[in-house]
Amino acid sequence: MLSIVVEHIFLLVIVTLISVLQNAFFATKVEREGKEHNNKTAFERVSCANRNCMDSYPTFLAVMWCAGLCLNQAPAAFAGIIYLVARQKYFVGYMGQTSQSTPGFLFGKRVLAFLILMCIVGIFNFLLVRYLGNDYKDTMETITNAASALLLIP
Amino acid sequence: MLSIVVEHIFLLVIVTLISVLQNAFFATKVEREGKEHNNKTAFERVSCANRNCMDSYPTFLAVMWCAGLCLNQAPAAFAGIIYLVARQKYFVGYMGQTSQSTPGFLFGKRVLAFLILMCIVGIFNFLLVRYLGNDYKDTMETITNAASALLLIP
Amino acid sequence: MLSIVVEHIFLLVIVTLISVLQNAFFATKVEREGKEHNNKTAFERVSCANRNCMDSYPTFLAVMWCAGLCLNQAPAAFAGIIYLVARQKYFVGYMGQTSQSTPGFLFGKRVLAFLILMCIVGIFNFLLVRYLGNDYKDTMETITNAASALLLIP
Repeated sequence: MLSIVVEHIFLLVIVTLISVLQNAFFATKVEREGKEHNNKTAFERVSCANRNCMDSYPTFLAVMWCAGLCLNQAPAAFAGIIYLVARQKYFVGYMGQTSQSTPGFLFGKRVLAFLILMCIVGIFNFLLVRYLGNDYKDTMETITNAASALLLIP
Repeated sequence: MLSIVVEHIFLLVIVTLISVLQNAFFATKVEREGKEHNNKTAFERVSCANRNCMDSYPTFLAVMWCAGLCLNQAPAAFAGIIYLVARQKYFVGYMGQTSQSTPGFLFGKRVLAFLILMCIVGIFNFLLVRYLGNDYKDTMETITNAASALLLIP
Repeated sequence: MLSIVVEHIFLLVIVTLISVLQNAFFATKVEREGKEHNNKTAFERVSCANRNCMDSYPTFLAVMWCAGLCLNQAPAAFAGIIYLVARQKYFVGYMGQTSQSTPGFLFGKRVLAFLILMCIVGIFNFLLVRYLGNDYKDTMETITNAASALLLIP
């Protein structure tokens, strides 16, 4: 029975694993910076970047899993990958200069908004199917697949 | 196959979405307060309130989803909504005066305790059904539905 | 239908409940230490230990649930219990002396690595079964059950 479930979530699990490895990478960076006591400013900057990433991590996980369960796992996992790339850019940019951090943060917001939209579409779709018997889920999945490609442009 | 799953969790997904939007609202408040550099105390207060809310956020999500999966989604989602209202009151109260923050915190504790109780009841019920063949799940659901209404009183 | 799902996750739910109770215990400790204003250092130490535990909490939850869903719940729940024991030792050690905190942290890392390995094995197994029709899941479960016992040794 579980293999049926795994078929619908394995992409989400892979993205979650990548995000966990990224968390471990961030934590290692903070730990290594904390051991070198010569520059206090760099440690504070890395620690703050890590804190910002960690604060939004449960939100990201919850939204990605909801979107993947409600509608389709492929675009949700794709958006999750883009979010992780944006987070990586944000973290690395934060380590260098503060001015580079803003675009990464804005990018993350857009991906999260897209995932929230996917959740809402999925739930509306479910309610429509249940109470009206109208089924346009295939159309919606095509649209979200196309929309997730649009996220790459800017 | 997924539509069967969605039928049992869509209320939980809606509550999760509302909580994510609330998180975004909190983050926006902190960001706006951080840009106005005139009063340091207000920023620290808002930042601390946001931190407290964020620290208990994964705990709340985990308990709500466990309670919804183990027993029934309706009372779990209802308790989640009450928790979010309590968090909103806590955050707004923290921005004003510190003395107002304590009731909100106590309220959140009670909702979490109720959700934990729901989890325990659900698991006990499952184990009883599995090993004894005794089924009183309908009774339990009625009781929890009634109990979730009692949370509104104080 | 949900009782089938609960049968595959109830151990994970129990471990999640224990971790939530542990979180409540940590929060109570921090709150009690914060009210006694005589020693500032002890409060900062407890607060820092609580923050470290909380930062890695969503990561732990995500990895444990993924491992439990992908492969088998029994070793995942067992590793989760070991992680909680390690966290308890870490927190109590942090309250005493700083030198005792490092082994607890290393122990937590090993458990997380084991859970990540379980996820990867589960996904590889699923992909192999799907595309090659080869099934060695029973062998894998035996190996992970044996491996989870090895975690107790050091």
